[in-house]
Amino acid sequence: MFILMVYDVEVKRVMKVLKIGRKYLNHIQNSVLEGELTPAQYKKLKHEVGEAINPERDSVRFYVLRTTQYLNIETLGVPSRPGDAGAFL
Amino acid sequence: MFILMVYDVEVKRVMKVLKIGRKYLNHIQNSVLEGELTPAQYKKLKHEVGEAINPERDSVRFYVLRTTQYLNIETLGVPSRPGDAGAFL
Repeated sequence: MFILMVYDVEVKRVMKVLKIGRKYLNHIQNSVLEGELTPAQYKKLKHEVGEAINPERDSVRFYVLRTTQYLNIETLGVPSRPGDAGAFL
Repeated sequence: MFILMVYDVEVKRVMKVLKIGRKYLNHIQNSVLEGELTPAQYKKLKHEVGEAINPERDSVRFYVLRTTQYLNIETLGVPSRPGDAGAFL
């Protein structure tokens, strides 16, 4: 399934959350990662992120798509982060 | 259609881009907005954002879903920005 992860966490936890996210997903934009995961991988990702954040201060949002059949992605400006994978759909 | 907009723009243009985004979408997280738009509204949003950014420095990404039938949204931590609309799906 296609997972889009966006996070808004305090500076001191950004690197930790990003590091976890990048184990599973492609880093697309400042606080945005996306990729195809199995349900088991997604469960692990959520668990690890849940352990890393402060749930009273941070927010992490997962958009979970069972199919990308109805999804289009459009980018204005710089297409993706330099050195990272671009759009792969 | 459901639109998710994520932006990574330089500080001096953040307020301008956010202001445009909020005319059309709900501000969900630091640099994330989402909402239901007509194709005409989406076209206007893209046009206005395109005018506001520096395409060589900024990046704005739109995830366009023709249906939310296959979409689930899950949040860890703080559910949404204080004072903003929460998840509405």
